[in-house]
Amino acid sequence: MISKYKTNPIIKPNEVTPSMEGYRVLGAFNPGAVDYGDEIILLLRVAESCKPREGYVSVPIYHFEGEESYPDILEFKSTDPEVSLKDTRGVVYKGQDYLSTTSHIRLARSKDGLNFTVEEKPFIYPIDESEKYGIEDARVTYIDGKYYINYTVVSEGSWATALAVTEDFVRVERKGVIFHPENKDVAIFPEKVRGKYIALHRPNNSGFGKPSIWYSESPDLLHWGNHKCILRPRDNKWESQKIGGGARPMKTPEGWPIIYHGKGDNSVYSLFCLLLALEEPHKIIRRASTPLLTPTEPYETEGFFPYVVFSNGIVERDGKIFLYYGASDETVCVALTDVDSLLRTF
Amino acid sequence: MISKYKTNPIIKPNEVTPSMEGYRVLGAFNPGAVDYGDEIILLLRVAESCKPREGYVSVPIYHFEGEESYPDILEFKSTDPEVSLKDTRGVVYKGQDYLSTTSHIRLARSKDGLNFTVEEKPFIYPIDESEKYGIEDARVTYIDGKYYINYTVVSEGSWATALAVTEDFVRVERKGVIFHPENKDVAIFPEKVRGKYIALHRPNNSGFGKPSIWYSESPDLLHWGNHKCILRPRDNKWESQKIGGGARPMKTPEGWPIIYHGKGDNSVYSLFCLLLALEEPHKIIRRASTPLLTPTEPYETEGFFPYVVFSNGIVERDGKIFLYYGASDETVCVALTDVDSLLRTF
Repeated sequence: MISKYKTNPIIKPNEVTPSMEGYRVLGAFNPGAVDYGDEIILLLRVAESCKPREGYVSVPIYHFEGEESYPDILEFKSTDPEVSLKDTRGVVYKGQDYLSTTSHIRLARSKDGLNFTVEEKPFIYPIDESEKYGIEDARVTYIDGKYYINYTVVSEGSWATALAVTEDFVRVERKGVIFHPENKDVAIFPEKVRGKYIALHRPNNSGFGKPSIWYSESPDLLHWGNHKCILRPRDNKWESQKIGGGARPMKTPEGWPIIYHGKGDNSVYSLFCLLLALEEPHKIIRRASTPLLTPTEPYETEGFFPYVVFSNGIVERDGKIFLYYGASDETVCVALTDVDSLLRTF
Repeated sequence: MISKYKTNPIIKPNEVTPSMEGYRVLGAFNPGAVDYGDEIILLLRVAESCKPREGYVSVPIYHFEGEESYPDILEFKSTDPEVSLKDTRGVVYKGQDYLSTTSHIRLARSKDGLNFTVEEKPFIYPIDESEKYGIEDARVTYIDGKYYINYTVVSEGSWATALAVTEDFVRVERKGVIFHPENKDVAIFPEKVRGKYIALHRPNNSGFGKPSIWYSESPDLLHWGNHKCILRPRDNKWESQKIGGGARPMKTPEGWPIIYHGKGDNSVYSLFCLLLALEEPHKIIRRASTPLLTPTEPYETEGFFPYVVFSNGIVERDGKIFLYYGASDETVCVALTDVDSLLRTF
């Protein structure tokens, strides 16, 4: 049993202060999530655009001078035959991809996991050339007193995954790009397994197969290797295009349950359960045959990029599970379940 | 000054014994190269196809049972509208990419670096699902008494880079995938710099920019991180599409010279010189403005995939440089120069 919370969405873009004048918030979604003291903290992806000039398509980006980052706007004439809109998320100019919004990571805090207060200022925002087009989809893993936050960075170098670390959700130390392009959906396990840190990740696959979930090992969380493909899309309507990992894995006596997403027919995104072996997490114990969650409610089937449920944040409190997810690349929602129910969904 | 050897090519496909009955060798090219005792050893990429049945397109692949690997053939009806030929190198079926040949790594040995004897049997060949479509383009780096060999593996998981190690070019120990898909053109430096092993690599970039040369660090040659883009294609006729690193870097008092390749207009491949800073090899000291080598000779402008010169093997002996390169994805050639000349080409 899993139930979508009755007053979803729990955070909407209009509750979020823009990061600067002239920007508007189009999305507050895909939150990382973590239990921190008596709080649950969400690491929201906040997507912003700037109001385009009449007759132009505007792409918000950053430029960097020394240690400082500055917002910037690329403008393309709407009538230029070299300009096309990929979907609501992307702009193509002269064969190169750009994003229609720029994202950063913003904190939201709650005592009950349901009612959140969104902070006024960004928590992690672009400061490096590898982050020129934005920072997306944070995931948090607590290991030995520190919170490791990984997120997608986007630039001319394409999309990759960077790492940062914090102890207090105030100061953040950047650790650089840990998975080179093109890679996202990185989920770091909360403890070492057989002497190595473990992560799931999702490299691109531009033709030989479909984007799939991979497994990697690390001695130090910074350098990763022993890459293996462990799970591929299936020939069903929910996973026909690609799959990718979700939040950091939870540990249970039966194994590591993972909530992953599938992109299926008509670009509909759903969530699935997977159980990985405790001591050999590159091995699959069980894989659900039908989705745990699909877009059914108006807030999931309408919006910026409709028919998307996407989870990269999960919190367990006293056996109860808060599964946070982004709906339609626009809002934050939550579904409630518990560990036993989750393990019985297979 | 660099001069193409007068009797190029020095190895042709017809000098290479097929790895099994029914196969024919279409290419012996893109060799890794290393000074080993009184020999120069080349690690050839040998590309083979099977004769297609009348009316079919044949794709040679491997399948695996336990520890054993077996050759296999996928056959697609030539008249099937779902089948198309990408170029001489690729077949597309139902939107998925396949290779028209399967490659393995074969040794060739020489005393003078010019006259080679090709071994009868493969040295490294597919034994793992990640190598199902073949093994390509080896590079060798000597570090502390061992020879580290990296090579491109191709499968449904797309293309990635794996590592193996040998001390004697007889026994080889596999070390798994060190750069996840999609990544090739990996060149490992011959010593640690500021306490870390260093490699150049070339991740794919499917839209945001053009495939470029990246830098990474490792504590152990197996796990890699701190990925940074250090060199992008330029807007000239030789590098307009993409670039990628060549053989392992050489150490000189002025820095690390690198011979990289550019894919330019009309898919012509050329070779360029680059000089990286000794203590900070992510920094560019000099980049040549014109190519070191371009396809000009008939053996470079005709063949399996014409207008390609591609180098992943270099040997330095007493200041003299043997720059080995593949021509037209078909033969092995060599160009001769010396360290001083190379540094003066900038």
